[in-house]
Amino acid sequence: MAAYSSLEGKANFTPPDNLPTKIPCGEVTRYIVDCLTATGAPLHGAHALAEVLVAADTRGHYSHGLNRLEMYVNDLKRGLCDGAATPTIEKESVSTALVQGNNGLGPVVGKFCMNLAIEKARETGIGWVAARGSNHYGIAGYYAMMASSQGLMGMSFTNTSPIVAPTRAKAGVLGTNPICLAAPGRTIDDPFVLDMATCTAAAGKIEIQNRKGEPLPDGWAMGTDGKVTTDPKEAMKASALLPLGGDELHSGYKGYGLAMMVEVFCGIMAGSHFGPNIRKWFQTEEPADLGHAFVAIDQSFFAPGFEGRMGDLMDHCRNMEPVDPEKPVLVAGDPERSCEERIRREGGVTYLAQQMNESWKLAKLLGVEPMKGL
Amino acid sequence: MAAYSSLEGKANFTPPDNLPTKIPCGEVTRYIVDCLTATGAPLHGAHALAEVLVAADTRGHYSHGLNRLEMYVNDLKRGLCDGAATPTIEKESVSTALVQGNNGLGPVVGKFCMNLAIEKARETGIGWVAARGSNHYGIAGYYAMMASSQGLMGMSFTNTSPIVAPTRAKAGVLGTNPICLAAPGRTIDDPFVLDMATCTAAAGKIEIQNRKGEPLPDGWAMGTDGKVTTDPKEAMKASALLPLGGDELHSGYKGYGLAMMVEVFCGIMAGSHFGPNIRKWFQTEEPADLGHAFVAIDQSFFAPGFEGRMGDLMDHCRNMEPVDPEKPVLVAGDPERSCEERIRREGGVTYLAQQMNESWKLAKLLGVEPMKGL
Ligand SMILES: NC(=O)c1ccc[n+]([C@@H]2O[C@H](COP(=O)([O-])OP(=O)(O)OC[C@H]3O[C@@H](n4cnc5c(N)ncnc54)[C@H](O)[C@@H]3O)[C@@H](O)[C@H]2O)c1
Ligand SMILES: NC(=O)c1ccc[n+]([C@@H]2O[C@H](COP(=O)([O-])OP(=O)(O)OC[C@H]3O[C@@H](n4cnc5c(N)ncnc54)[C@H](O)[C@@H]3O)[C@@H](O)[C@H]2O)c1
Repeated sequence: MAAYSSLEGKANFTPPDNLPTKIPCGEVTRYIVDCLTATGAPLHGAHALAEVLVAADTRGHYSHGLNRLEMYVNDLKRGLCDGAATPTIEKESVSTALVQGNNGLGPVVGKFCMNLAIEKARETGIGWVAARGSNHYGIAGYYAMMASSQGLMGMSFTNTSPIVAPTRAKAGVLGTNPICLAAPGRTIDDPFVLDMATCTAAAGKIEIQNRKGEPLPDGWAMGTDGKVTTDPKEAMKASALLPLGGDELHSGYKGYGLAMMVEVFCGIMAGSHFGPNIRKWFQTEEPADLGHAFVAIDQSFFAPGFEGRMGDLMDHCRNMEPVDPEKPVLVAGDPERSCEERIRREGGVTYLAQQMNESWKLAKLLGVEPMKGL
Repeated sequence: MAAYSSLEGKANFTPPDNLPTKIPCGEVTRYIVDCLTATGAPLHGAHALAEVLVAADTRGHYSHGLNRLEMYVNDLKRGLCDGAATPTIEKESVSTALVQGNNGLGPVVGKFCMNLAIEKARETGIGWVAARGSNHYGIAGYYAMMASSQGLMGMSFTNTSPIVAPTRAKAGVLGTNPICLAAPGRTIDDPFVLDMATCTAAAGKIEIQNRKGEPLPDGWAMGTDGKVTTDPKEAMKASALLPLGGDELHSGYKGYGLAMMVEVFCGIMAGSHFGPNIRKWFQTEEPADLGHAFVAIDQSFFAPGFEGRMGDLMDHCRNMEPVDPEKPVLVAGDPERSCEERIRREGGVTYLAQQMNESWKLAKLLGVEPMKGL
């Protein structure tokens, strides 16, 4: 969890005061595409990545949006990721495929695989596609929702750099390996979207507590001695996040097991790097060779009436009496949907001033137009 | 979580002192089969159920073994479950099926569906089977391991009576809905077997704390006021277990989302009862109409070398430096494997004296031979 080594030369630029912070989504997309094409990525790939990053920001997952652009630029610049690569199918049945990402951009690989899974699901009811030779693909929800926006069920999983500690162990050896299921609800714009890292709290949340100078809740992370720590600095040094559940008494071994399950679907099935073999965060010496999994299911191959039942269950939960009247019961996907609605209302995403400064410097370094505000 | 209403007339029998407590697995099976056939179940179904219950006990999940026999006997006696029913395929593709359980015994439905999924996986790489009209099927691991013992990946999911509370809500509305993945490891007898309820701690663990008169750890269950409680009695009254993760600060909404995901795979896809519509525990007025899901994957349709990578990852974790030298790092399936080995060494399962007394009374009530010890 060391700070991402800033791109060389970026520090030479000094941003003006009072850069705009509220940026229309179209302008964020334009800026990301410009940065990526300036780095040598073709337009098609740049657009795929920009879409996923902007989706992350509009869904409120800022740690996976614009904030990550520099990592992608860095990998492209150093030739660690091939922006021009297109994926190829290595092996295929009517319902499955193994895809070689050829070290292309994660979203290029991801969109290719999810489209393939959807095609297969329409034919046989299910498509299960594993990918290797890929790179960081952003938010898992983006791919699963490609299916749900077409009225199908979608799932997506990815492995990632080792930072989550197995129960009883001292060091991080698994990624924050997200699980995602998007399933159509009563209307097309009300899907169930569970999109979750399998650790208790993502690294980004620990960085935020550190910045605020506030302690961590118990059960988020371990210190270098393998004991649960509330000190964000110590947690960042140890790089050993606790799996969902926390310690053994609170069944943290279940979160650990789920992170392993995701790794089985990704690296173990696809033959990419896995677990401890994946490069560490911010280590930029070798291609990532990540593994992902994409599943589409056409629920009409099962019992009729799926969408109505899904809507009933979601509404039942939402209408339950809350413990705190100020905090209504939500279902997975609701927080992100509210965030999207707010951003639509406001006409753009509001970023931190520091983010805008960094983006301005990156624009100058790459010779592209900085982002313009509303 | 009220005590299961004892079968009528059972209390008339007084067990002798000092009944044996260590019983060979074959004798437990014989006793369960006798009880079920005495209740009218055909031999085939009785055997299927006995096998799953004995597997639970030998794997150390006593709450799902012999301990549950009375529930099944009760349902059969009252005609709420049809011991003679066989499942039928309602709808089918090369890779999927929807199965109607016809209100048969859960393990009869489960074995039928998993065999079907395995057949499909051998043809197309994957088989995904959803079942409705079923009953309690015991441990999810039994079905997933039907696949792994044949060298394939297996998954299984079931919904169950509402007892887990959504984050922010006061009442239980989802089941403890288990997730299970069994995947072949380097050798056939060393699979990865994650088999976990999606709540922090199962109801059985709360009953145990109550019996011991010890408080609950924070984050296991809520009281009737919707606040986390450490009082097992209060927890049992509220019937609102916390999902994996615990409260919202510790990402309990992820465990809640996972329980919903399982319900999507089960009741929502299969068209059975789901969530709040499922009968409460120990309510014996109507058939359960549970939903399950069974998935088999032939990993040879993906990258070659699966078993070696799986073994490498498992061994890497097992060989990590533990925080406490007395507690080695385990992988999912290890605790159950040790338990099986111990029972094999000891020649039988050791039950609590109370369990033996209850089983003796049930034997007398049904007119079957009580269990004999080693
Ligand atoms: N590519 C990668 O390597 C990688 C790794 C980890 C995470 N991610 C992504 O990071 C993003 C954030 O992950 P996270 O785990 O921090 O998400 P999170 O904890 O914010 O949310 C997890 C899920 O819980 C739901 N949720 C939140 N509050 C809820 C409530 N009160 N009631 C019901 N549901 C609620 C959300 O809708 C979401 O589906 C995800 O999009 C994930 O895919 C990517
Ligand atoms: N039929 C139903 O309705 C139903 C409902 C809920 C649960 N169940 C069954 O109950 C059984 C018990 O469920 P549970 O959640 O209480 O299980 P659990 O908490 O004992 O174990 C869950 C998983 O974690 C693994 N594990 C345990 N300790 C570990 C450690 N230190 N390191 C790594 N892995 C570890 C186990 O091998 C297992 O795979 C399961 O077989 C489940 O299928 C059935």
